[in-house]
Amino acid sequence: MTIALYDLAGKDGRCFSPYCWRARMALAHKGLDFEVRETGFTDIGAVADGASRTLPVIDDNGWIVAESMDIALYLEKTHPDAPSLFGGEGGVAAARFIDAFALANLMPVIVRMCVKDIHDALQAKDQPYFRESREKRFGATLEEVQAGREARIDALHDALTPLRMMLKRQPWIGGDSPLYTDYIVFGALQWPRVASPFPMLKPDDPVAEWFARGLALYDGLGERMPAAA
Amino acid sequence: MTIALYDLAGKDGRCFSPYCWRARMALAHKGLDFEVRETGFTDIGAVADGASRTLPVIDDNGWIVAESMDIALYLEKTHPDAPSLFGGEGGVAAARFIDAFALANLMPVIVRMCVKDIHDALQAKDQPYFRESREKRFGATLEEVQAGREARIDALHDALTPLRMMLKRQPWIGGDSPLYTDYIVFGALQWPRVASPFPMLKPDDPVAEWFARGLALYDGLGERMPAAA
Repeated sequence: MTIALYDLAGKDGRCFSPYCWRARMALAHKGLDFEVRETGFTDIGAVADGASRTLPVIDDNGWIVAESMDIALYLEKTHPDAPSLFGGEGGVAAARFIDAFALANLMPVIVRMCVKDIHDALQAKDQPYFRESREKRFGATLEEVQAGREARIDALHDALTPLRMMLKRQPWIGGDSPLYTDYIVFGALQWPRVASPFPMLKPDDPVAEWFARGLALYDGLGERMPAAA
Repeated sequence: MTIALYDLAGKDGRCFSPYCWRARMALAHKGLDFEVRETGFTDIGAVADGASRTLPVIDDNGWIVAESMDIALYLEKTHPDAPSLFGGEGGVAAARFIDAFALANLMPVIVRMCVKDIHDALQAKDQPYFRESREKRFGATLEEVQAGREARIDALHDALTPLRMMLKRQPWIGGDSPLYTDYIVFGALQWPRVASPFPMLKPDDPVAEWFARGLALYDGLGERMPAAA
């Protein structure tokens, strides 16, 4: 039976959440049927009787699982015969390091280049909550945070150096084929692709080529979500 | 039969090479008997009939293997029943990312804080080669590169953020117990511990606690190599 994925949705069904993309790619990786339930920021509390303060949440015929990593582990356990998301226990452990790498080194740089664009991509009813909570977090207006981003694109390029170096040796973080570790970093880059017109990757960067391969996976699952214009 | 490990040696048998420490820890992880053959920088060309321009090299009763990652993969393949170094194919693939992380984000910061100390820890006969090759690489004298390092310790602290964040979730990069991924980062920190008196880690840093656990592994294999005074 179809699994429901509660995914954060902006205007026009625009889903950009980096964590929800991890879950969406993980479901596709396992070859599972799933149905996206578009959810606004201010509707998260109503999902599955308030099961989680954040998305993604999946409802697998009554089994509710929140948090992208927990969802991936749940899918790995419940679908052991489908392609592995981790390639063994060492891959699970390393995914926690790569998660921390994305959270510490990539996402803070990215969000400061697109937080106002994310705001503008939200449903109108979610915009006041987003502005208030993020401006409190940054101690500045969304406009101030995002201003001068052209000068900060090199910082993202630098932060992606480990991935770029690794790509000389293998085409995916998972090795010859993608694993959940790829979806962690993919989600961090799909986020601005869908929410912001500002280009984050230089076209001739091997990381851009890896990201394009990620967009094409599973019949273009990532690509079918239109890029922000 | 005992495996020979050709390890880079400075004065008084002081072995600090980050790559050789990966191999040493990997051999111990597999529970293998090995014998360290101390080798100066300028003697590497004579090891195993010039098999490699770099160390470590192992000689497993005639099988010569160079490059720390290739040594770990060789040991994993030849000793499948000993504790795994990777925890599956996903762990092997992720190790290449973590290797790139260490090479891009940690080692350049570390070397600039101890390159003159490394020089001084070398055997006298190796010092001219080291000075000439490194000064050419950095475009500055060793003294100039190392100067002002006190102001750069925070950059290393920042570069270790992903590991520090991950340690909130699990005690090793390998999960509940160490894997080769831990030895990659361990080697990067054992390097200055053995070669330089300059303290790289703040004592209350969870990374310092993780490193101390690494030093204690295998009957204190890392700890038995004295810290630079």
